[in-house]
Amino acid sequence: MLETLFSPKSVAVVGASRTQGKLGYAVLSNIIQSGFSGHIYPINPKADEILGLPCYASLDDVEGEIDLAVIVIPAKFVVEVLETCGERNVGSAIVISAGFRETGHEGLMAERKMAELAEKYHMRTVGPNCLGVIDTLTPMNASFAVGMPRQGRIAFMSQSGALCTSILDIALAQEIGFSHFVSLGNKADLNEIDFLQAWAKDSESKVVMAYLEGIADGARFIQTARQLTKHKPIIAIKSGSTSAGSRAVSSHTGTLAGSERAYEAAFKQAGVLRAGSVGELIDLSVALAYQPLPRNEQVAIITNAGGPGIMATDAIERCGLRLASLSQETMDGLRQALPSAASVLNPVDVLGDALADRYRAALQSTATDPNVGALLVILTPQFMTEIEETAHAVREVADHSDIPVLACFMGEANTEAGAKILANHNVPNYVVPERAVAALKAMVDQRQWQERPLPQIETFDVDRERVARIFQRVRTDGRLQIGDAEARDILAAYGIPIPASKLCPTVEEAVAFAEEIGYPVVMKIASPDILHKTDIGGVRLNIESASDVRDSFDLLTFRAMRYMPDAEIWGCLVQQQVRGGKEIITGMNRDPQFGPLVMFGLGGIYVEVLKDVSFRIAPFSRREANEMMREIRSFNLLRGVRGEAPSDIEAISDTLLKVSQLVADFPDIVEMDINPLMAFEKGRGVMGIDMRLVLSP
Amino acid sequence: MLETLFSPKSVAVVGASRTQGKLGYAVLSNIIQSGFSGHIYPINPKADEILGLPCYASLDDVEGEIDLAVIVIPAKFVVEVLETCGERNVGSAIVISAGFRETGHEGLMAERKMAELAEKYHMRTVGPNCLGVIDTLTPMNASFAVGMPRQGRIAFMSQSGALCTSILDIALAQEIGFSHFVSLGNKADLNEIDFLQAWAKDSESKVVMAYLEGIADGARFIQTARQLTKHKPIIAIKSGSTSAGSRAVSSHTGTLAGSERAYEAAFKQAGVLRAGSVGELIDLSVALAYQPLPRNEQVAIITNAGGPGIMATDAIERCGLRLASLSQETMDGLRQALPSAASVLNPVDVLGDALADRYRAALQSTATDPNVGALLVILTPQFMTEIEETAHAVREVADHSDIPVLACFMGEANTEAGAKILANHNVPNYVVPERAVAALKAMVDQRQWQERPLPQIETFDVDRERVARIFQRVRTDGRLQIGDAEARDILAAYGIPIPASKLCPTVEEAVAFAEEIGYPVVMKIASPDILHKTDIGGVRLNIESASDVRDSFDLLTFRAMRYMPDAEIWGCLVQQQVRGGKEIITGMNRDPQFGPLVMFGLGGIYVEVLKDVSFRIAPFSRREANEMMREIRSFNLLRGVRGEAPSDIEAISDTLLKVSQLVADFPDIVEMDINPLMAFEKGRGVMGIDMRLVLSP
Repeated sequence: MLETLFSPKSVAVVGASRTQGKLGYAVLSNIIQSGFSGHIYPINPKADEILGLPCYASLDDVEGEIDLAVIVIPAKFVVEVLETCGERNVGSAIVISAGFRETGHEGLMAERKMAELAEKYHMRTVGPNCLGVIDTLTPMNASFAVGMPRQGRIAFMSQSGALCTSILDIALAQEIGFSHFVSLGNKADLNEIDFLQAWAKDSESKVVMAYLEGIADGARFIQTARQLTKHKPIIAIKSGSTSAGSRAVSSHTGTLAGSERAYEAAFKQAGVLRAGSVGELIDLSVALAYQPLPRNEQVAIITNAGGPGIMATDAIERCGLRLASLSQETMDGLRQALPSAASVLNPVDVLGDALADRYRAALQSTATDPNVGALLVILTPQFMTEIEETAHAVREVADHSDIPVLACFMGEANTEAGAKILANHNVPNYVVPERAVAALKAMVDQRQWQERPLPQIETFDVDRERVARIFQRVRTDGRLQIGDAEARDILAAYGIPIPASKLCPTVEEAVAFAEEIGYPVVMKIASPDILHKTDIGGVRLNIESASDVRDSFDLLTFRAMRYMPDAEIWGCLVQQQVRGGKEIITGMNRDPQFGPLVMFGLGGIYVEVLKDVSFRIAPFSRREANEMMREIRSFNLLRGVRGEAPSDIEAISDTLLKVSQLVADFPDIVEMDINPLMAFEKGRGVMGIDMRLVLSP
Repeated sequence: MLETLFSPKSVAVVGASRTQGKLGYAVLSNIIQSGFSGHIYPINPKADEILGLPCYASLDDVEGEIDLAVIVIPAKFVVEVLETCGERNVGSAIVISAGFRETGHEGLMAERKMAELAEKYHMRTVGPNCLGVIDTLTPMNASFAVGMPRQGRIAFMSQSGALCTSILDIALAQEIGFSHFVSLGNKADLNEIDFLQAWAKDSESKVVMAYLEGIADGARFIQTARQLTKHKPIIAIKSGSTSAGSRAVSSHTGTLAGSERAYEAAFKQAGVLRAGSVGELIDLSVALAYQPLPRNEQVAIITNAGGPGIMATDAIERCGLRLASLSQETMDGLRQALPSAASVLNPVDVLGDALADRYRAALQSTATDPNVGALLVILTPQFMTEIEETAHAVREVADHSDIPVLACFMGEANTEAGAKILANHNVPNYVVPERAVAALKAMVDQRQWQERPLPQIETFDVDRERVARIFQRVRTDGRLQIGDAEARDILAAYGIPIPASKLCPTVEEAVAFAEEIGYPVVMKIASPDILHKTDIGGVRLNIESASDVRDSFDLLTFRAMRYMPDAEIWGCLVQQQVRGGKEIITGMNRDPQFGPLVMFGLGGIYVEVLKDVSFRIAPFSRREANEMMREIRSFNLLRGVRGEAPSDIEAISDTLLKVSQLVADFPDIVEMDINPLMAFEKGRGVMGIDMRLVLSP
């Protein structure tokens, strides 16, 4: 895939320039200097020769095949040139030129045209408004970046060209290697999903590193990324946490959802490791690209100083990793190899006067310990410390070890020589232990992710037709909001238990039904026009007798008429009053990028005051539903604390899966809340007491 | 203070060596090479001359005054030499030699002796087991560190010598300047508090940077640091979060407290800014040392790239700072200075092709905007970017600005030249925006801290004698745990309201008292031997009648006897049953380093399941009590949510202050819980329902 883009046999630079300091010069010069061995065709009607290459007036003047066209001309000519490219059978194009979507409507239209041409001529196109593309294996630097990175295992893409320049500049200094380096630009044709697909099959790229500002197609992104991350890590920054949607929301779920929550859920469900800064992006990518995944979550620390060992230990415990318990054999080995004052317990302290040999011995002992999942070697540049020799000892052990070895040479002026040795031998090195530990944590997460099966979506035997009919009727009525009896019908159709209830148009019917289901009952005014019934005193609880039913019927009717004289009143809803159980809330809000974002939380103050909720994008698996439940801080309340019986967690996860199925089945549900969903003791199930749902216009 | 230590006129190096690679050589060589201009006396009986200086057989052979003795000899000779130093009127000593406390009891005894000598001869002593001391102004490098840092405004101390070497190595590369650089070692005499006191008066030191593993005297540390931080920031790492105390705890507070919580509270109350890593320690210190404090918490961003501007914005919002709203005047100025495609809204985007002039114009416009509290300049190394010229533009604006200017030159290979210029002109520069924002946040915190008044400790009119008498009686009884009636007496003595209650030895007295205070009442078995009454069914609620009182009396007595046949039973406690209100828990656990650590939280699940609690070290002010309350996530429940009336927050803070006073008055209280403390509606106060307290043996 994308062969003519990354490994073309011939490249035309449309807009090649003779003038230093112009982009058209920089691109051509970069292609030549990168050692590209194919044909290079500068296109410029005003020049005969540029940088020693014969120049062509137009693409049509080129006789040979053109695999890749790099376009560096004013925006207004771009579409025309792409048309020519297509006719001329060019394989791929990179549009570096800016002045499109970012400048307004006309630019957006030009981008649409570019996408059409890409499809019409099967000519995949990068950009516009980008820095270009680098392939270090071909090699080819078809960009105007300053400098060519080392060859390596990281495939990088960025929606921000400026960030490409920053990362490249850091990579040059730290000798970080890349396989591909792609500036996505405005993504008129090729977007992040296309590159994920390409890199899934690319054996040179071991890790995908990405800077994203937005994602074109959320559902496809999750699908594609989820496949990729089963064998290659994706480390990504998603910047910009402001909400994209501006639709007014009326549900709890809608209020608590938002673009940031959706990205968080999507990355979790796709196995994407999220970095909090460019520094962390690089930290994690390097470790995952060049070291094996940890055997387990237990870390052994080798250090020549107590303080940094403690800091590493703090970081390890804080992020949920563990200090390895060294085996007796390892400790015996360490005792033999180290002076008596050294600590052979983890963190292994080889002492401040340790030379390289002592480090080597300690590393060799611990690296083969089956209890040790990963090694972290800390060095402070003390008086006798052999920085370079120790770096060599570390990389030798790393070379022969099947667990990851990460280094933390804490310093800069004197440690630099050691850092270079480590970089050249692909041992990740961090200036402070906390950064190394963050990388180890990501590696453990990646391993656990790779070991888990792909999500299996369960489907329940539901009455989808019944819901479709309800929606149709509601739409026919000119309504979009659904509550009460219709809402309960929907829950019932999807197998979510509801309390016995009946819409009673008359007092007598209300009394009869209450007598049938038994007291106490709840009564609510039934009106399509009144949504927030509690607010107007339209709900009465604890009704214990027939006379109480009569009084309540009249009272509720009176209040409804006073509140809204024109309201259509259907009568009263009489409902079985549920006792006991814990209040749960679940709901869905449709995210503009990722679609149905399902929420879970404990009802009442937990949602409203503590905002203790979790999210997943539907459809999700039972495992994901279980994780979603366990993510909230108040989950232990469902497990049963202070002598209480545990709640029916199985039934709650069933409900979450049914909600997932419902909102996946009906894309026209834009938001819904089941609030409260009462969860009873284990084995006694759940009951959806109230539900509100909004359809798209 | 510590003049002979930092600015001696003469230094003796006891244990000076002729052999390169020995510490005694390195120290002498460092003193000479650092440019120290006073007298230097190498002491070594086996040499005539070292490094061109005449050598002395012993301190007694030196004729002149000796201000400072640096001791680099085997541990066993150190005490003897210090004695000689004292007799010889040496002003200060630095003991570099290791082999003391860290090797066992004998070493600890030697350290005690060192402390005695220091006091006897008024000879302040650093170490033992340290790297030494550097003063860049004198200048003098009396350490065996590799390299001498630049002169600067940061005073640094570290309990780990190895960490000194790391930080020095980073400082050398990044040209970070220090005033003093102190390796504390084992702190036999001089400790962190002594240096805080010295630096409080030192005009060269603008910032204190510290790495601490333990603190000698918690209460004095808070007192001293609190004074210092009113005019100089302290930035500290505290490593090691494992609890120091191993005493078994029996209270909720004890379970939730711990050394980490105590440090967190102490640093907060002393205004110490806590860094999470060595990287952050340096990041914050440099910003605070070299830039003025922000005018307000609003940040303006100038950037040549959208992506990093978004990342900076995300970081700003996440940490509680704000993006500045630029004034109309500023925006007009920017519009004139920048191309039309640039964004004149904050983040100000000067565009990817911005040269230094455009940066300069944007900086000048925003720096004078009264809405702007701080400036963050982001640069990505794009095709046309003038890195060095832009660095000069930034430092020029910083030089003439009274708000802080921080830079984020995102890169490494090509941005280095700019970074050097910024470093040389004391403009802090960070490779990613998140780190710059963390520094800005610390600066805003420091400003707010400096503006708040020193805490005023309120004292309530309490009956301290009564509590003293109770404690005496309890101790006379051979008890250490206090509950029930005695506990309520203590609450009452400190003005904390309690329910009406009476210990009734007989059924008839119980009935009479219940009739007097009115039903419902609570009854509890009264026995000094039974602490966890609920566990044995020793508490009955909702007692509504005289006959119910009789039944309960017999039932509770029966259960107590069955549970513990030998228990002394005093009868039953009859208590007014409190209705309504919210359950609060407050308590205290005595921390081995900081003393009385007071806890606050909402009772029940909030404390037990969500662990939603906050801590302060007593005594604390009303302002601190209020902050302590607002720190918990569930605080809004006290404010009144979902239509509930707000709780009596004033009365809760009164109670916290009274607890603070109680535990400060009686250092022999090792732990206590008031649980629950019922908080009623605003204006209706609180009531301490139950209290348990443990005295020290």
